[in-house]
Amino acid sequence: MSTGGPALPVPPGLVEAFRAWEQALTAGDTETLAQLTAPGSSTLRGDADGLLVGHDAIAPTLGTEPARRVVQTHVQVTDPDHALVVAVTELARGGRGQQSQLWARTPEGWRLTAAHVSTPAPALDTRVWRVVGDPLVPGATAGPLVGETVAVKDVFAVAGQKVGAGNPAWEAAAPVERADATVVDTLVEAGAAITGIARTDEFAWSLGGTNHHYGTPPNPRAPRRVPGGSSNGPASAVSLGHATIGLGTDTAGSTRVPAAYQGLTGFRPTHGTVPMHGVMALAPSFDTVGWMTRSPTLARDVGEVLLPPDAAVDGSDLVVVPELLAAAEPDVRAAVETWVADQGLVVREGWPLGELASWVRAFGTWQAWEAWSVRGGWLADRLDTLGADVRTRFRHAASVEKPDADAAYDVVQTARQRLRDLLGDRVLVLPTASSVAPFPGAGVQAVRDATLRLTCLAPLLGAPAVSLPLATRDGLPCGVSLLAAPGRDRALLDLAVSLS
Amino acid sequence: MSTGGPALPVPPGLVEAFRAWEQALTAGDTETLAQLTAPGSSTLRGDADGLLVGHDAIAPTLGTEPARRVVQTHVQVTDPDHALVVAVTELARGGRGQQSQLWARTPEGWRLTAAHVSTPAPALDTRVWRVVGDPLVPGATAGPLVGETVAVKDVFAVAGQKVGAGNPAWEAAAPVERADATVVDTLVEAGAAITGIARTDEFAWSLGGTNHHYGTPPNPRAPRRVPGGSSNGPASAVSLGHATIGLGTDTAGSTRVPAAYQGLTGFRPTHGTVPMHGVMALAPSFDTVGWMTRSPTLARDVGEVLLPPDAAVDGSDLVVVPELLAAAEPDVRAAVETWVADQGLVVREGWPLGELASWVRAFGTWQAWEAWSVRGGWLADRLDTLGADVRTRFRHAASVEKPDADAAYDVVQTARQRLRDLLGDRVLVLPTASSVAPFPGAGVQAVRDATLRLTCLAPLLGAPAVSLPLATRDGLPCGVSLLAAPGRDRALLDLAVSLS
Repeated sequence: MSTGGPALPVPPGLVEAFRAWEQALTAGDTETLAQLTAPGSSTLRGDADGLLVGHDAIAPTLGTEPARRVVQTHVQVTDPDHALVVAVTELARGGRGQQSQLWARTPEGWRLTAAHVSTPAPALDTRVWRVVGDPLVPGATAGPLVGETVAVKDVFAVAGQKVGAGNPAWEAAAPVERADATVVDTLVEAGAAITGIARTDEFAWSLGGTNHHYGTPPNPRAPRRVPGGSSNGPASAVSLGHATIGLGTDTAGSTRVPAAYQGLTGFRPTHGTVPMHGVMALAPSFDTVGWMTRSPTLARDVGEVLLPPDAAVDGSDLVVVPELLAAAEPDVRAAVETWVADQGLVVREGWPLGELASWVRAFGTWQAWEAWSVRGGWLADRLDTLGADVRTRFRHAASVEKPDADAAYDVVQTARQRLRDLLGDRVLVLPTASSVAPFPGAGVQAVRDATLRLTCLAPLLGAPAVSLPLATRDGLPCGVSLLAAPGRDRALLDLAVSLS
Repeated sequence: MSTGGPALPVPPGLVEAFRAWEQALTAGDTETLAQLTAPGSSTLRGDADGLLVGHDAIAPTLGTEPARRVVQTHVQVTDPDHALVVAVTELARGGRGQQSQLWARTPEGWRLTAAHVSTPAPALDTRVWRVVGDPLVPGATAGPLVGETVAVKDVFAVAGQKVGAGNPAWEAAAPVERADATVVDTLVEAGAAITGIARTDEFAWSLGGTNHHYGTPPNPRAPRRVPGGSSNGPASAVSLGHATIGLGTDTAGSTRVPAAYQGLTGFRPTHGTVPMHGVMALAPSFDTVGWMTRSPTLARDVGEVLLPPDAAVDGSDLVVVPELLAAAEPDVRAAVETWVADQGLVVREGWPLGELASWVRAFGTWQAWEAWSVRGGWLADRLDTLGADVRTRFRHAASVEKPDADAAYDVVQTARQRLRDLLGDRVLVLPTASSVAPFPGAGVQAVRDATLRLTCLAPLLGAPAVSLPLATRDGLPCGVSLLAAPGRDRALLDLAVSLS
């Protein structure tokens, strides 16, 4: 070790503690790593996926670094009880990284109070992307979207590329597309460059974003939490600054949920207004193209390229429905209430939503029926290629009987009319998702069910909805959605810009 | 600021110093940044391109971070004169980063003694890559190279992709290739996956690796120094751990020089043994396919796939020539001498190389003549699309007259015979490049000229050469080359493995 900084001697025990850390890392000895990490709520550990604060948040993540060896060490001793140890590492997979560690001597021995770990980025973050170019497809040299870059969800056709649909078996068998999906072509003609093809949950049927095969894209605003899905790749790409526009789909919330979880603006248009040509279907009665951006302004600019002119309808009174507010967790509800209070005049109105639970069930049944209709032929003897959660969904879909599907369809039609009557020419304000982004693992299904009760209103109505970013008191991203009657897409995006 | 760690108060002046740093960063006030950085040789600053040690190395790099704002700050005070300040940053281009700073109070005020800066990696490091997939082309499921990944220099045909040749005008006009270059296909059939298409110096005519259009790929082992070229992208990709095999070309050193500069193994085969079909030509009399790896073993494994069987020739006595050793800088020469001493029996032999300078000139003249023959048709009215250094080279090439070229060709033939006679069935040991990787900018041309005197021996001979990684006493990468008679490629790679 070279000793730098103030010319203090390296205090006794420090080198041994550093070596113990390295040995535990090599051995995967997470117990020792946790023990050498200072207890308490102010210990810090940061890496490319974000900064974690407090021993309890840090401990479960220790020992997950790639295999490496230390090739250079520098020590700056600040006083006999504290030292910064900076090490250059060489990874077994190639490339060099750096770790900076602040050590403190405690009665129990030397403990790490702060660590900052950098490892070389891979050629491609394959959790986020399947293929990327500089650019993959150049945009037209003139147009309203010149300078913008697009992360395309892996369910859109891009000429010269396959559609992978988040499933390796599908991708392996897929043909190379000869033409772009209509919206891809429209964006390119408007000047946007296609950066690449980003991940999706399998066959776009999920809201969590934890693709079983390719891993979970990061959520930069909420480290270690799920990114939201099924447009998980485009959402994380936009959050990471890899692209400015995330092109996704939204059948039951797949654009709005990741937007809410990651602090983005997310838009779902009126069903049927933006062409689905060249986009893989999930449930055609509800499928829409959607997009995510870091600003409402750009979401509107994309709308001006992709959307037809609105029907001439006036009116944009805001209405908030207590029953829907109550469907969200207290922290999200509080964020939405605060936002509502800031808007001045918002009508508070109780809606007769006693049948909402059955509407949501009918939505799910008809969606499942359609999903199996479009995908069952290929999936029937390939269900084992799916991750567990999506497999469960498709297996259920395979079991839906025609009479039940037809009955569900009738309920959906009834719900649609009832909700349209309740909404009128007003704009509904509601929480986008029921919670902030959960951690991966247990409980995700319950979160999904709770969020679906909110996100399925737009597809039930066939209506446009835009999610705007809010934050809870803990600083975690969540979303408030604005929902208008079908055909009022541009007015809704204009409203979103004016309210941000 | 939240205060963590030992519950010491934030010392006076620290917050102000931190704010001054941030303001100077925003304002691009490099003078203030340099002043707030502690003087002396033990100050540290690390980012994704590597760790710099000492104020003098750090100062020129300050103020080059992307625009960002601080969204979270944590302070750990170790004693009244020292504190670690950890900040989470949000970039204007999207994504979150982290900086960890150790501050010390000096008589002149608070000074930064160590900084560790992380910014979110881009979707693609466009200095290194043009397009990347997961993978771009899957390898065969069985074969000796299963598990290996290839960075293909942007002069090889890959089906479905363009050949960009390091020049945007060429790339824009290039057709999409219908078939792979023969070697690309052979590697894929052997099980290697193609990760992507990596950068090259323009039309592969450079040794520095500082592409004018796409930037200089990083050199992880020698931060801020050039990566070497013209196979700069594949070399950096292998160094960074983005791929295991860098597929390049070597006309006058374009595989061996980046290998030496970055601590890799680099191989150039016998001229004419590895098919050039589907590879863009620079100077066909000298052009070869080459490859770079992190281990000599893998370089040999690739050779077993790409090379024909050797002619049956025995003999692998090592010979070192003082005149060639003297062509390298003292630090590189010392590293090679040490390596030679470690090998035991190496014959030291003076060679009559009085004409070497004229041979090198003739090599350059014939190379230029051929380069203009293959590329002049397209470049004649497009010289302004080239970066300054490559433009100078092609402009000179355009001026070479046929009689001078013919005379140069005759000198090359004479040199080839003389050198083959001198070498016999022995293996020549020589420095790969004349120096370690220089910093970009002034003096690169002189370095290039000095290195060419060494690297052009293999093309003059038409012989195989392998560069093995060494390090100078300062820890910087350099290379020792082994050169054998034409047709002894496999024997040479076996020897390289046995000597490593």
